[in-house]
Order: sequence, then C-alpha cells, then structure tokens
Amino acid sequence: VSDSEFDLIRDIFAPLASDAPGAFNLADDAALLEAGEYIVTKDLMVAGVHFLPKDPIDLVARKLLRVNLSDLAAKGARPVGYFLGCVWPVKTNRAAIEQFAEGLREDQALFNIALYGGDTTAHRVKSAPLTLSATFFGTAPRAGVTARASARPGDDLYVSGTIGDAGLGLMALRREGKFLAADKAPLIHRYQLPSPRLKLGAALANVASAAIDVSDGLLADAGHMARASGVRLEIDAGAIPLSAPARRWLAAQSDRDAALGALAGFGDDYEILFTAPPEMRRSVSVAAKASRTDVSRIGSVRRGEGVVLIDAGGDEIAVEQAGYDHFES
Amino acid sequence: VSDSEFDLIRDIFAPLASDAPGAFNLADDAALLEAGEYIVTKDLMVAGVHFLPKDPIDLVARKLLRVNLSDLAAKGARPVGYFLGCVWPVKTNRAAIEQFAEGLREDQALFNIALYGGDTTAHRVKSAPLTLSATFFGTAPRAGVTARASARPGDDLYVSGTIGDAGLGLMALRREGKFLAADKAPLIHRYQLPSPRLKLGAALANVASAAIDVSDGLLADAGHMARASGVRLEIDAGAIPLSAPARRWLAAQSDRDAALGALAGFGDDYEILFTAPPEMRRSVSVAAKASRTDVSRIGSVRRGEGVVLIDAGGDEIAVEQAGYDHFES
Repeated sequence: VSDSEFDLIRDIFAPLASDAPGAFNLADDAALLEAGEYIVTKDLMVAGVHFLPKDPIDLVARKLLRVNLSDLAAKGARPVGYFLGCVWPVKTNRAAIEQFAEGLREDQALFNIALYGGDTTAHRVKSAPLTLSATFFGTAPRAGVTARASARPGDDLYVSGTIGDAGLGLMALRREGKFLAADKAPLIHRYQLPSPRLKLGAALANVASAAIDVSDGLLADAGHMARASGVRLEIDAGAIPLSAPARRWLAAQSDRDAALGALAGFGDDYEILFTAPPEMRRSVSVAAKASRTDVSRIGSVRRGEGVVLIDAGGDEIAVEQAGYDHFES
Repeated sequence: VSDSEFDLIRDIFAPLASDAPGAFNLADDAALLEAGEYIVTKDLMVAGVHFLPKDPIDLVARKLLRVNLSDLAAKGARPVGYFLGCVWPVKTNRAAIEQFAEGLREDQALFNIALYGGDTTAHRVKSAPLTLSATFFGTAPRAGVTARASARPGDDLYVSGTIGDAGLGLMALRREGKFLAADKAPLIHRYQLPSPRLKLGAALANVASAAIDVSDGLLADAGHMARASGVRLEIDAGAIPLSAPARRWLAAQSDRDAALGALAGFGDDYEILFTAPPEMRRSVSVAAKASRTDVSRIGSVRRGEGVVLIDAGGDEIAVEQAGYDHFES
C-alpha cells in the first residue's frame, strides 16, 4: 500500500461516514453516539477462516456487515451504524481497498446504516491474512430485546429460511462434493452474501421467547440456546427447511441421515432460530408474513439439556459435527 | 489452542464481564448499553506492528485498553466499558490467554471499566500474528466533548507529561542506541504500559479549545490537529517536556536538533496535546493540578497550515520523520 493511512481514510472511508452526524467525518479518534439505549455486537472475520482469500473483496465487506447485522436481527434491534477495523495484508493495493469500500457503501445504503469510526493498519508479516472487525450498534425494540436464554419447556422451535446452503456453497467453492451446474451459483451466493433477517427479528420482538442467529450451524447455535436457557431442544430432522439445491444434493447422498446432520452442522446460514409458546403460533405466522420471510416449525423445547435431531421414526440421529469451532483442530 | 471457543469465553472472559449488567455474562452475541450519550473509539493492535511479539502478554492486554482509554481521555470522556476482538496465533496456549485476561482484569479494576462483549477466533496461517481490536465507549463530559478541529489562531499549545520516552523504550528493546542501564526500565515501561490521561482530559473539558492524544508522535498528531482545525502549529523545541532519561539520551547525541526532532517524531506517548486561549492559562494550571498531571506550554496556534518545530534562535528545525504511518514503507 503506497497511500498513507490518512489519505485512505479521507479519500475512501470518510465518504462512508457522511450520514453519521457524530462521526466527525472520521477526522477524529472518537465518535459521538446520540443519546439512546443501544444493542452492540462485534464479529471478527479472518481470511482463510471466515471467508476465502479469493472471495470478491466487495462481497467480503458486505458479509462483514451482514454477519453483524444478523446478530442485531436476532435481538430485534434496528441497526444504526458501525465501527470498522481493518488489518490489510502486506501487498494490498488501493484498488482492492476501494472495491472493499464500494461493498460497504452498497450495503450501507441497503440497510440504512453509516460508518461511525474505526482503525486501519497493515500487517508486516508477509503471509498474514486480511483481518476484519466490526462493532455494530442498533437501537433496542420497544418490546425489549429478544434474549437467547429464555426458551421454556413446551415452547415450539422455529427457524427462518433454509439451512445448509452456505455450507454447500463453501463445498462448491472448494470443489468438494457434486452439484448440478445450475445449483452452484445460488449456494455460493448464500455463502458469500448472507441475508440478515432484520425485518423478521423486529417482528418477533413481541412474539419469540428466545432467539439466536444461526452462524456456527443450526445444531451448534441450538446448543448455545439450550445451554443459555437450561433446556433441551428436539429438532425434527424432516422439518428442517431445505432449498431445492440442498434437497437435490441430499437426494444424491448414500447416507441421508448423516447428510442431513451435515447440513444442520454447517455454519454461515445467518437465519434466525427462535422459540415461542404454542399459543403464539398465529403471531409467528403473522410476523413471518409481515416480514415476507419463510419460517418453519422444526421442533420443540423440553426439560433437560443438549440438542437432538430426531428422524421420522422418532429415533435420535447421531451427529458427528456439531458446528464449526475455531479452537478445535 | 485445545480449548473450545465456548470454554475460553465462559472460563476466562465471562468473569471480566460480571460488572457489566448488559453483557449477559457473554452468553449472548450482543450486549445492551443503558440509555446514554456515548463517545466511542476503536483501536487495533497487531503483534510486530504496535507491540513486540515478545512483550509480556498481560502488558499487551493492558496497552490495548490504555491506547483506547487515551482516545477517550482526549475527548474528556469517562470510560464505561469495551468490546474485545482477539485473533490468536496458531499455537497459542491457554496459559497465555489466561495471562492476557489477567492483564485485562487488572486494568479493568484500575480504570473502573468492564468487558461488554466481543469475539475470539484463531488464525490458521502459521506465522499470522496476534491481532487485537477494542471498541471502547464512555460517557460525554457535561461541558461537551473536546474536539480536535477547534484550535484557533492565538491559542496556546500544551502537552501533558513527557515526550519521546516510549520511542526510546522501543529502541532499547530493539537494542538500538545507547542508554544508561538504569534508564532502560523506565523507558521500556513507557512503551509497554502507557498512562492514559483520563483525569486531565476530564478537567480540560471546559478549558481546552481542542485536544488530541499523542499516539502517532507529537509532530504527527500536531499535524492531525492542524489539518482538522485549519491552522498552523508552532512548537518551541526547547519547551518540549523531556524525562530525565530522555534528556540524558539527548545529551549524548551529536546532532541535538535532529535528536529532538526524532523524540518529537516517535509514537506511543499517549499524552494529551491541547490548545486553549491565553486567557485560560490559569484554568489550564488548575486542571493540571487537580488531575496531578504535569502540563507544559510548548507553542502556539497561528494562521496557516502544518506544524513547525522552532529552535532557540527562532529558526525552523527540519524534521525528517513525521510520525509513524502504517501505510508508508
């Protein structure tokens, strides 16, 4: 990078802060958030861990925003803005940083958010990967935030959208598995550009008893919710919503149960997994329709602990991989 | 790292969040900040760029907090808490992470702040360095935040503490230059563990016309202030406050002006550089005494642009290095 940090911020990043009154055009080290009650979340993304080094960098930028927006969505929060941290690899050129900023600009407009501040620096170690950090803040829903620790025995368990597509997209990018040519692009798109369920999350603020966004994988995040709430979650494997490409991939697998377990173990779905008492079924349906988001009832909350996947015969499906864990290898 | 991310958070990081009511014990992806007007700042630190890979990791943790606290200090803000991002090198062991958390704990108690949330992950590339991110938030002073863009021609220019010690400490760690044996430890201490000037910053909220913390170096940060305010800053080289070890190092240099320029070019001081109208001199003195912080008047604000270092004869000292820039090499 031949441009100075100052020039980069002034030329490329400051325009992204023009709608943030308290960002001082990024000419200051600190930003001012107007008075309010804020929900805050922070997610890191590292090349080779959370995205592929060859992923288009504008999509990487947008994914960084969207994985954080997904956390806010699960809380029912309305996103306001974010702070950005970038550590660029040694040989990053200005064009790449501009393309990155273009991705940010695009999604800022789409989600009505602004850049409030941050920090940018460069690695000195040659192979050190692009490392990104975003701290997002949003305003709490009037009904109060949706917790993840308040699932109660007897509640229904729901998930939005479809599960496993992003993981299949990653497989396709890595040339693992077999896919119809026409199925690859939509799966890869799900991996590279998740859709945070902000409208559904907001609509669920009065409805859901607990919610979490599915980032580590359906089973792993169900595990987080079960642990936080002190309950057991039973998931009906046949009820897990699958896209047409995922159903086609599944149909070609010899061990269907294992393959279904794999889909439920993949990460990067960025759907919302939530619970609600049975008397709220109509309200859930209204929230789904109002937010134009598909919602599937996939199981129920029981006394106990852990997560189980149940097949059509009522038997437990043994699952090998329970989500991606950065600290196990 | 053999421990799972979840265990790390529960065992090591969650206790750091016990005083943060909205942190949900770090069992959630998001935290709730109680209603208020917040000042927010974010600083990254990368091993080999902002600290040495061999620096004690508890001091690295404390430096991460302190460089961010220094940004809040320059605004006159009262720190409340922070969000933490850690990308650990491939072979990090649990003991190192525990030592890191112990540093956080120590400074959290000292500065009365709490951990509110964050994200932790691990590199997959072997040589990739420890990469840290912190997003800090504090409450604004009643008098309003101190801007960096409001220095006015005619104002006096001040700096707290002493300048250049941290840069000399870094030289000593790198075995560059010659130091008295007794001088090394205090200089290295200044590099590894800066002292954010929170009390002074708060006391200046009604007094200073503009303020910035000295992180990139006295000359570089004066340049940032000059640019933001649209003024020229003249610094009296002889008035730059130096510690006894720095004065001894300076006395041993053949080119005193160049050496003084180097001290003013080093980074990592984490002092406050600020301006105030001449009629506020008594108020500045009161703020310094009330906060038990040394403050030196080192120059003045003029019409024009840029920063100049003036020698005893009134001539401009040519300065080679104007602060560290991560994007020039």
